[in-house]
Amino acid sequence: MDKAEATTVDIGESSKERKGKAPLLSTPPPPPIAKAKVAVGGYKKGVAIFNLILRISAVATSIGAVATMANAEETLPFFTQFFQFQASYDDLPTFTFFVVAMSFVLGYLILSIPFGIVCIARPYAKAPKMLLIISDTVMLVLATSTTAASTAMVYLAHNGNPNANWQAICNQFTDFCQQSSGAVVSAFITVALLIFMVVLSAIALKRT
Amino acid sequence: MDKAEATTVDIGESSKERKGKAPLLSTPPPPPIAKAKVAVGGYKKGVAIFNLILRISAVATSIGAVATMANAEETLPFFTQFFQFQASYDDLPTFTFFVVAMSFVLGYLILSIPFGIVCIARPYAKAPKMLLIISDTVMLVLATSTTAASTAMVYLAHNGNPNANWQAICNQFTDFCQQSSGAVVSAFITVALLIFMVVLSAIALKRT
Repeated sequence: MDKAEATTVDIGESSKERKGKAPLLSTPPPPPIAKAKVAVGGYKKGVAIFNLILRISAVATSIGAVATMANAEETLPFFTQFFQFQASYDDLPTFTFFVVAMSFVLGYLILSIPFGIVCIARPYAKAPKMLLIISDTVMLVLATSTTAASTAMVYLAHNGNPNANWQAICNQFTDFCQQSSGAVVSAFITVALLIFMVVLSAIALKRT
Repeated sequence: MDKAEATTVDIGESSKERKGKAPLLSTPPPPPIAKAKVAVGGYKKGVAIFNLILRISAVATSIGAVATMANAEETLPFFTQFFQFQASYDDLPTFTFFVVAMSFVLGYLILSIPFGIVCIARPYAKAPKMLLIISDTVMLVLATSTTAASTAMVYLAHNGNPNANWQAICNQFTDFCQQSSGAVVSAFITVALLIFMVVLSAIALKRT
């Protein structure tokens, strides 16, 4: 598409040169097809810029999720002779998976920022958009899975389950529960941003 | 796109009529552009048929997941004066969410089969494909979230967590655990099929 646009512009300049006119004060109006292309290009560029802003916001929220969960720990002030009551994220395997998977998503989001800039610079290129939409979908699935699993564990820690005789641990470890809940909320915002990015990219890819 | 194709074919026929030649034994070879378009149309139709097969397979696996989980219950053969030990899927809120969400995904998949057939009949139409790719992504996120949450609970039921003092319940409820694990595995296959469908639709949408 951008090849066709470049060709149009070249023909316009060469015909001006052939006629020997130097446009000093006013340039001739562009043909209507080129006008329409510039309008669609501006639309596509706006979508790409908005997508990059969403991507940077997702980086921020995933940093928040990883940092909060990785620092979630609490030591209770009382202890017995053999045991001190302590909770940290690596006591629950689901929270360990949360930290690992959200770090992975965070790394992907940072590394994908240059591709988002390429999409702004070349609004008609389809290859980087396809690459981004597919890898965004994969990362969306990863982030959703770990967020949902951690939500189930946070719910269990808050409420317990009398049927399975699992006690709520949030009565004792209040701060730990609040920190891990905050990390899960931050991860949910990341997931929402990723969903929005994927849908926006798909709509932008449709209008070629 | 199919309008352009139809126009090409019409022009070819009218030029034949103008020359007054009736092609009795051999038809003239189509122009190379029309040939390429037919090839791309066949490719797109093949992808759409493959997508429909994946969709029907996902219906089957999600029926398996919902039916297995909804029928997962076990009553232990011993009981006390006040209490009989019994486990069913609605003892754990996560499993209830699993049944509800996977039924929703199942209903969506069945209702989306006609759209998949439309994609086969009209391989150049973009609107039904866009509709399918966006709603497939949403359903993928729903299925992934409930599958991941149920996986976390199944893992907890199998292994327990000594740090939080949660006992493994699979020592007693063996059949219940096997049934719920089977439902989660079936849901994972549904998720994999949905990922494949979304990526395949995105690639098919790119080649316009």
